[in-house]
Amino acid sequence: MPTLVIANKLYSSWSLRPWLLLRQLGIPFEEVLIPLDRPDTRERILAHSPGGKVPVLVEDGFSVWESVAIMEHVADTRPDLGVWPSDPAARAMARSVSAEMHAGFSALRSACPMNLGKRYATRDRGEAVARDVARVTAIWREARERFGAGGPFLFGAFSAADAMYAPVVTRLDTYAIPVDPVSRAYMDTILGLPAFREWLEAALDEEWVVAHDEVDEEPTATLRRRNP
Amino acid sequence: MPTLVIANKLYSSWSLRPWLLLRQLGIPFEEVLIPLDRPDTRERILAHSPGGKVPVLVEDGFSVWESVAIMEHVADTRPDLGVWPSDPAARAMARSVSAEMHAGFSALRSACPMNLGKRYATRDRGEAVARDVARVTAIWREARERFGAGGPFLFGAFSAADAMYAPVVTRLDTYAIPVDPVSRAYMDTILGLPAFREWLEAALDEEWVVAHDEVDEEPTATLRRRNP
Ligand SMILES: N[C@@H](CCC(=O)N[C@@H](CS)C(=O)NCC(=O)O)C(=O)O
Ligand SMILES: N[C@@H](CCC(=O)N[C@@H](CS)C(=O)NCC(=O)O)C(=O)O
Repeated sequence: MPTLVIANKLYSSWSLRPWLLLRQLGIPFEEVLIPLDRPDTRERILAHSPGGKVPVLVEDGFSVWESVAIMEHVADTRPDLGVWPSDPAARAMARSVSAEMHAGFSALRSACPMNLGKRYATRDRGEAVARDVARVTAIWREARERFGAGGPFLFGAFSAADAMYAPVVTRLDTYAIPVDPVSRAYMDTILGLPAFREWLEAALDEEWVVAHDEVDEEPTATLRRRNP
Repeated sequence: MPTLVIANKLYSSWSLRPWLLLRQLGIPFEEVLIPLDRPDTRERILAHSPGGKVPVLVEDGFSVWESVAIMEHVADTRPDLGVWPSDPAARAMARSVSAEMHAGFSALRSACPMNLGKRYATRDRGEAVARDVARVTAIWREARERFGAGGPFLFGAFSAADAMYAPVVTRLDTYAIPVDPVSRAYMDTILGLPAFREWLEAALDEEWVVAHDEVDEEPTATLRRRNP
């Protein structure tokens, strides 16, 4: 059984991606959670991956790290599970937009760090963030329109592309960023998934605070169940 | 035959990656070069990819964009060509370090933009750059040591990982960044490839100047054959 090494469920957007993929595809795995920003964080991550970052998938005695590489590894080792769409054009777009996510949207990512425990009011977060939001939602609309007929996900059935964008879904939601109806419906699909709810419930019970993932805005709601 | 849409060979590090992969694997393709930083650049790129960036591979009527997605698409559609190493542990590491490149090393990338036409003197470029160089060369040494027995490349035979790191090889070379002997030998392998020489020759004949890829340092040599 593979082991997935992750960080705080409340904050670690990269960890959510492969975790959600494995759960959605029904692949059993053991979970190791290493809290961020503590004296032994770096050393504990380095024990699993020389890159010093989570997520890391450990299987058959070796490690795979970087979210998009984990997706491709799972696709490669479980070709029947539909990690990527089977239609070649859909698959090409799913791979392209997943890689675009892997390397991009840095304005949105840094202005609105994933934080599942708080909700914030709509506000102008600058042009670069607006450009990222416009591109992300354009991707979602195009995928849904061209390839979404067979189900509620980007390419119909759940695929790695949905896993890659899940922490963008949570950002647009918790930071109350206005989106078009097609994007909103897609977001509600992801936010309603039992696997996502399971992750969220565990996140809201965490006690750790990671200061640099807490933005300097008054939240409109705090969902965490323990102090912070 | 696929079409690969790229930008200036002198400056476009992302373009070099899939171009080198296709050439090394002997896959015939047509090349479309869109010069960066001109009034019609954006519009011309958007005609091939909604992401607005090159490289883009156009094949069977659809586009694949983002360098690492292009590599996976080529692997998927040409499973016999050895895009990734065949040994599972080597393949996992090759994918992981390729994805690490795809999303990382931003300090090195911004301090030392790819510029094949000029050489610069060794100098201290800051701690973040030094950390990136340390990690890149650690990856190269580990790959060579664990998986490099069958040839001079990172995983023995040429793979997508070599293509992903080729523009890092050129940076460490043209900015005269000191490296260990294993890394230097690996760099010389890449710099000596006929396919890389072909790219370089074409680059040195280009006339365009992209101001934000020209660093504010006195070059120790200028290799370009036309004015700039
Ligand atoms: N490109 C990487 C990004 C991974 C990443 O940045 N992970 C963060 C947590 S979300 C991390 O491990 N940070 C380590 C630390 O802060 O010590 C991926 O796709 O997996
Ligand atoms: N993450 C992308 C990066 C691609 C990229 O940044 N390409 C640059 C050229 S090297 C570009 O197309 N820029 C468009 C422009 O500046 O108009 C990839 O891996 O392909």
